[in-house]
Amino acid sequence: MSRAAAAGLCVIAGSGVLPLHVARAAATAGRPVFVAALSGSADPALFEGLEVEQFGLGQLGGLKQALARRGVVDVVMIGGIVRPGLSDIRPDLGLVRHLPALAGAFRKGDDGLLSAIVAIFEEQGLRVVSALDVAPELAAREPGPLGRVVAEGQARAAIDGGLDLIGALSRFDVGQCVVVEEGRPVAIEGAEGTDAMLARVAEMRRTKRLTREGRGVLIKAPKLGQEMRVDVPTIGPATVRHVADAGLAGIAIRVGQVLVAERAETVRLADQAGVFIEAVP
Amino acid sequence: MSRAAAAGLCVIAGSGVLPLHVARAAATAGRPVFVAALSGSADPALFEGLEVEQFGLGQLGGLKQALARRGVVDVVMIGGIVRPGLSDIRPDLGLVRHLPALAGAFRKGDDGLLSAIVAIFEEQGLRVVSALDVAPELAAREPGPLGRVVAEGQARAAIDGGLDLIGALSRFDVGQCVVVEEGRPVAIEGAEGTDAMLARVAEMRRTKRLTREGRGVLIKAPKLGQEMRVDVPTIGPATVRHVADAGLAGIAIRVGQVLVAERAETVRLADQAGVFIEAVP
Repeated sequence: MSRAAAAGLCVIAGSGVLPLHVARAAATAGRPVFVAALSGSADPALFEGLEVEQFGLGQLGGLKQALARRGVVDVVMIGGIVRPGLSDIRPDLGLVRHLPALAGAFRKGDDGLLSAIVAIFEEQGLRVVSALDVAPELAAREPGPLGRVVAEGQARAAIDGGLDLIGALSRFDVGQCVVVEEGRPVAIEGAEGTDAMLARVAEMRRTKRLTREGRGVLIKAPKLGQEMRVDVPTIGPATVRHVADAGLAGIAIRVGQVLVAERAETVRLADQAGVFIEAVP
Repeated sequence: MSRAAAAGLCVIAGSGVLPLHVARAAATAGRPVFVAALSGSADPALFEGLEVEQFGLGQLGGLKQALARRGVVDVVMIGGIVRPGLSDIRPDLGLVRHLPALAGAFRKGDDGLLSAIVAIFEEQGLRVVSALDVAPELAAREPGPLGRVVAEGQARAAIDGGLDLIGALSRFDVGQCVVVEEGRPVAIEGAEGTDAMLARVAEMRRTKRLTREGRGVLIKAPKLGQEMRVDVPTIGPATVRHVADAGLAGIAIRVGQVLVAERAETVRLADQAGVFIEAVP
């Protein structure tokens, strides 16, 4: 085992099962893992068998001490968290002096906020790493279909169009997700999130604003320069369910850059629904 | 009266009151006006005092004859129409030979479909003109506020960001409308339409995904190369109501390029709600 593999890792866990998968991947690789479960987002009980402690959103000082005691430098942030208001954060003494920077970042949108959080962690001597570095096996590692359903000609054109559109959007602080159908973008993710965007496509299908089922594609890829350490695009079983409800043909994800949560279940559901999941270069 | 001003005009009317305003503007300018009210979209009774006849979506031959009888060459298409399925169109003999072109265009999204319709009309020897050419007074004619509320510093930055984003989107067949708030795009219009997009912003406000009321701006402008003859961006009283419900500060429209339906009522509602409507260069 290499020295790097044996270095401790702190998983700062938001909601969902993805933090557990990342923590397990690191533990399997031989790293001592310490889980910091964020109050209100992560359920500590989920991490049975791993060392876990609960922290509030403002407890930077407390977390820093816990990591110093364990000699842990690497930190990975993973899982869902509802964008808090500044007033939702109860800062401890460790965080208090960073509040002005944080308050400024809050006005700058998600990108600005996440960059500020990374900067604050790094000022503490911690190193923020991407979940994809810790557990690259959670992404698709080579181009091609993940399940049995394959993207054909028209879907391929939609995928190219979607990647092109995500590229054009990349200098804006906006989502990494679009739906392209019959040559045109029918939905672009803003602040509402992927699930809400897919619900909208399903609604347009019901109201006949979109008429041709089984032709659209959900395309998800990080934008250029995306802060992959704290904001990794992710799909999972719920994505497949929503894609099927929206009458889409499939999902395209960028190779190596999109996490697939609960992969076996995600692929099983996709196969069952006749929906493709295709990793693209 | 100039010769051009006296030439007849056919207003192909979809839903809403905008067709009536355009028809009245042309009539006031001294042009003989013939209204072709689209079945299922326009109510012929609305056009009292003007010459009006009802046509189905597929009655190109019938319309052509009606125009030839009157010596009318100029045609303006205006008002809402739900994007029909190809099977919703009952073609008459005049349209039938254009069906292959139309069927191809249907697969190309709105831009392709509208361009194909313009091409078919022009093949008949008709001339498709923009509602903004017929009634330029329906757009804001110079930069500045339309009502009493004025956009301030932060809103101006949002407006610049929104116009920049619409520019980046302009080579895609997608909406002409975004909401920018606190430095980031929070909603981008796809196939759902402006009203649905604003309803989404209101929903994100209710669920606290967007927290700071009175800072966002709806920006509406045609994309580069937009087919302005058949697809003019429009705002009206309903837009103001939805903008207020969404907790936005105001609306920015591109000077001379966005129709303001029922302008007096639109501005009155905006003043009442404390919402600005600003025409920008």
